[in-house]
Amino acid sequence: MYSFKRLLVGKAKRTAQALHERLTKKTGLAVFASDALSSTAYATEEILLVLAVAFAAGAANAFHYVVPITFAIVIVLIIVAISYRQTIFAYPSGGGAYIVAKDNLGTTPGLVAAAALLVDYVLTVSVSISAGVAAITSAAQGTSWAWINDHKVLLCLILIAFIAVANLRGVRESGALFAGPTYSFVISFLFMVGYGIIRYLLHPAAAPAPEDLKLAEGYHLQPLTWFLLLGAFSNGCVALTGTEAISNGIPAFKQPESKNAATTLAWMAALLATMFIGTSVMAYLYQVHPRESETVISQFARIIFTGPMGWFYYIVQATTALILVLAANTSFADFPRLASLLARDRFLPRQFATRGDKLVFSNGIIILALFACVLVIAFGGDTSRLIPLYAVGVFLSFTLSQTGMVLHWLRAGRTKLPAAAPDNGSSVKMMVTGQLVAPAKLKEARHWKKSIAINGLGAIATSIVLVVLVITKFLHGAWIVVLLIPLLVALFRKIHRHYLDIAAQLTTEGLQKLRPVQHEVIVPISGIHRGVLQAFEYAKTIANGHITALYINVDEEATQKLRAKWTGFVEGVELVVIASPYRSLVAPMIRYIDRRLQLHPQQLVTVVLPEFVPAKWWHHLLHNQTSLMLKGALLFKPNVIVISVPYHLKIEKNGTNGKRND
Amino acid sequence: MYSFKRLLVGKAKRTAQALHERLTKKTGLAVFASDALSSTAYATEEILLVLAVAFAAGAANAFHYVVPITFAIVIVLIIVAISYRQTIFAYPSGGGAYIVAKDNLGTTPGLVAAAALLVDYVLTVSVSISAGVAAITSAAQGTSWAWINDHKVLLCLILIAFIAVANLRGVRESGALFAGPTYSFVISFLFMVGYGIIRYLLHPAAAPAPEDLKLAEGYHLQPLTWFLLLGAFSNGCVALTGTEAISNGIPAFKQPESKNAATTLAWMAALLATMFIGTSVMAYLYQVHPRESETVISQFARIIFTGPMGWFYYIVQATTALILVLAANTSFADFPRLASLLARDRFLPRQFATRGDKLVFSNGIIILALFACVLVIAFGGDTSRLIPLYAVGVFLSFTLSQTGMVLHWLRAGRTKLPAAAPDNGSSVKMMVTGQLVAPAKLKEARHWKKSIAINGLGAIATSIVLVVLVITKFLHGAWIVVLLIPLLVALFRKIHRHYLDIAAQLTTEGLQKLRPVQHEVIVPISGIHRGVLQAFEYAKTIANGHITALYINVDEEATQKLRAKWTGFVEGVELVVIASPYRSLVAPMIRYIDRRLQLHPQQLVTVVLPEFVPAKWWHHLLHNQTSLMLKGALLFKPNVIVISVPYHLKIEKNGTNGKRND
Repeated sequence: MYSFKRLLVGKAKRTAQALHERLTKKTGLAVFASDALSSTAYATEEILLVLAVAFAAGAANAFHYVVPITFAIVIVLIIVAISYRQTIFAYPSGGGAYIVAKDNLGTTPGLVAAAALLVDYVLTVSVSISAGVAAITSAAQGTSWAWINDHKVLLCLILIAFIAVANLRGVRESGALFAGPTYSFVISFLFMVGYGIIRYLLHPAAAPAPEDLKLAEGYHLQPLTWFLLLGAFSNGCVALTGTEAISNGIPAFKQPESKNAATTLAWMAALLATMFIGTSVMAYLYQVHPRESETVISQFARIIFTGPMGWFYYIVQATTALILVLAANTSFADFPRLASLLARDRFLPRQFATRGDKLVFSNGIIILALFACVLVIAFGGDTSRLIPLYAVGVFLSFTLSQTGMVLHWLRAGRTKLPAAAPDNGSSVKMMVTGQLVAPAKLKEARHWKKSIAINGLGAIATSIVLVVLVITKFLHGAWIVVLLIPLLVALFRKIHRHYLDIAAQLTTEGLQKLRPVQHEVIVPISGIHRGVLQAFEYAKTIANGHITALYINVDEEATQKLRAKWTGFVEGVELVVIASPYRSLVAPMIRYIDRRLQLHPQQLVTVVLPEFVPAKWWHHLLHNQTSLMLKGALLFKPNVIVISVPYHLKIEKNGTNGKRND
Repeated sequence: MYSFKRLLVGKAKRTAQALHERLTKKTGLAVFASDALSSTAYATEEILLVLAVAFAAGAANAFHYVVPITFAIVIVLIIVAISYRQTIFAYPSGGGAYIVAKDNLGTTPGLVAAAALLVDYVLTVSVSISAGVAAITSAAQGTSWAWINDHKVLLCLILIAFIAVANLRGVRESGALFAGPTYSFVISFLFMVGYGIIRYLLHPAAAPAPEDLKLAEGYHLQPLTWFLLLGAFSNGCVALTGTEAISNGIPAFKQPESKNAATTLAWMAALLATMFIGTSVMAYLYQVHPRESETVISQFARIIFTGPMGWFYYIVQATTALILVLAANTSFADFPRLASLLARDRFLPRQFATRGDKLVFSNGIIILALFACVLVIAFGGDTSRLIPLYAVGVFLSFTLSQTGMVLHWLRAGRTKLPAAAPDNGSSVKMMVTGQLVAPAKLKEARHWKKSIAINGLGAIATSIVLVVLVITKFLHGAWIVVLLIPLLVALFRKIHRHYLDIAAQLTTEGLQKLRPVQHEVIVPISGIHRGVLQAFEYAKTIANGHITALYINVDEEATQKLRAKWTGFVEGVELVVIASPYRSLVAPMIRYIDRRLQLHPQQLVTVVLPEFVPAKWWHHLLHNQTSLMLKGALLFKPNVIVISVPYHLKIEKNGTNGKRND
């Protein structure tokens, strides 16, 4: 076991080895933007899938709506990005939705945000990995590798296991690791979009109508209604997942942290908007239809990159798959970190707050990988079947976070400022609260009305989207998330109550001096042998006086033998023999111990169990497990303490002993 | 768990309730003959299956050989029966092959016989139940119940479970239970044979040639060679299984036990011979071919019982199925009894010698049922596929038992009798050995030459059959048994060596007075709370002086807090803090304890573990299992004794505590 762990995880790290790399804007973008940017690999396709429902029902122009829908989503993106810019300055030490909501709205909204985020982190892994595998299997279409399309789920599980092990080995979100894949993806994707649009202007062309048109899971054929358009909009909103990543990781940036983070956020939003709009415009121009066997991106790339440019198709697919794996990897940092915060606040088992051999939160990594695998298996590794569950949690956490910020500004605004507060960068002692206020806080307090407006708009916009998401996706899978989040919150609360209760029962506060313990020592025996005699000696050491040996009589003959041997062999121990007409051993012992406890309610009973420890595990099968059963029966009995006195048996010498009986 | 056991097994019986019913010859025949007689239900068919190989290869008269083969087997039966008659008188307290072989040939032959018998008891269950189910499914042919033919294995498993539970509930081999089914079977079977032969003489008829001719498993089509005839003979030898049952159970008969048992054996052999020959003759007359879908007996009964006698067909099938279930039940008495003998002699785990709630050897019953189920599943519940494994063990035990008897008589013959030994029924003090010799023994001693001749013939006949069985059936499955028996013997010996070794290590013989124990008390702690303080109090009670509290420093801040709290709070306990740069808790504790053991090699180390016992099982998930891991690591360390001092937590009061953190 141990050596397998070492092989898998590698050598342990000292606590002192924990180090924090500071990121520049460039590397910061690579590390934090992979999740958000990677969603352009599937967001357009998810819109098309819903529009395909109306297309298949006869609405020939249904796919045209992909462009206005994309613009609507980009507007939401801009609002969210500007809102989060505020959070970055207000919470320079990292303002995740859990912390912001808990700080400003109270524990329950905080827990709701945390539950929503945990669910969405799991979904990020499943969706990203499924989409990454789809990029790989799409590239395999038409080649001799097409058969891997039948093994999508297995491929997903292998990738998840790979990422989990990499994280258990302590892979850090290092700029060096992320920069290559992220910028390769961005560049190859932007090149594809630019090249594709120019090529279209020169030689307009349309994709061939596919035979295997794919529709959004669970939709019936229907005309192009407003409700269907809202559904397409909802599906596209997955593009916004990951936008909050930068606001969680501000302390990782170089100084000035907040400013650098804010700039990076702006860049990320701009890139995301460009790539997303570009993809949707291309889909419109080339009239690409979603297909069962191939992703929309793969279809583009095949149409555009022909002839001498054919190799670039594989570049696009490879960088797409790579960024999606990186996006999944982001959750492997976020989920365990949030779980450890919750565990630290005692809303999750404390094991989530323990750092493993590589200083990572190993338990969170393992649990995340397990849940992601379950989702992949349950939904057959199909991105579009997972999408209805996705984004609900993200927008719920957006809404809670933004609402929290509104209250944050309200509180800041209410704080009465000194008449002429100096704005020279030095701290000022607040007159009302007596607290030191940092200059940033003072600045905040001045602009609170503007800030309320921005975050208020953010809160309203995201809450509207949230309502739309829940309504349009409810029947297609969002109900699972809607059900799961309150259940998780209830679980958090139950765990929290337990820890509080334990703490209350264990506290040393108000504790009077404990009185010295009195105890009586009982040694259950099955006969007289060396192990028993050794147990008697130990009992004499720990007893203050009287020792009782307890023997159960199931065989009159054996009992007579024992009594005969007792005198002369054992000194200072009283023999008590109990009849057992039903041949049970444990029950009469328990009854005897209970009687002793009743007789002396102030005393403890110490049960000294002579046990021999066989040299090999299978030898256990050759002996009655009476002492194990006795221990089990006594485990939950107050005022009883059980001591096993082991008698270690040596390895038997083969050959010599075996001959005795021949 | 406990109440489920009560429901399944019923109320426990007192040891004193063990009682022994004495059987008359009539009831004795019913109880002990069911196994032997039931084999007539399939023995003829198994012969035909081998002959069918030559028939299918073109030998039109192949099936005619069933009659001479049957006669040959009956001759072996008569020899075996006469031989066992001798054993009955020589071992009036029950002469199973294990005891006879061990007494006269030595331990190893005794163990070989025991292994052979254990294997065959398992096979008796599988074969009988499979054959019983075949009787049921045959009857269902052509009715609306024909579908049960596809669920043979399940039906077998249900029946085995049923018999096992009945035996665990303490069903006794009572005459009342067995008499009905056994005599019904004998009467209906004899009636079928008689009626069938008379009917044939009046209206000669032949069975229609079947479309689904069944061949013996694993045979290639081949002409009618001597070897094939030997194979058919081997298959038919299964008729002899169970012949030894009476010699095991002599003490169950009314006085004079041996005489009654011998008479019953003679009756059983006569009945078995008549029924077996009758069946084979009928098969010859009616030219019945073995079929995939129906047993041979069922085919007879269908041909014979037509028109107004049609109902008798179902009587035959029902009594056949019933006697086969009873035959399986016999093994459920024999296997646990033999296992308990082996366990008493320490060749099997001693759990096999323990009587359960109903005074039966429960563990033997459960193991037998499990193995029988495994066989049924492995061989698809098909009697003819199990037959090659069967009877090898029986004939091996016959041979060993008869050879043992030969040596028994030789020894008796060598005993020098007093010149004029009185033959008046009184005991005589032997001049040579000084032992009392019972009159029966004296009589034995006189007829020893005749006895040697009889048992010698038995030994030779059964050993020849054994060789034939092994040769003809080896490739078809007997190799499994040939391999298994020595493996079992090796296992018995290994177990025996272990028990001898334990006994040698635990013996009090030659033991000098143990010196008083010195120990040092160490209390590993994770902080100061009520549970820890209580553990300190207990440690003070059992320690003779110094107590060490062991704390692992994984977090400098927490350690400072602990040190600050220590003074003033804890008295009489020394605090030892150990740094753990890799955050592991158990390893540094083990290292510390090891160091203490090295420092004082004459002392024990007592580790007092403060443990809180949660009120609900799932609460364990919320706590680190450090003490469990520590216990595991210390379990195999000599000179260390671990004591858990439990602090029992109460059920939490919902609602009140939960609000504290809001």
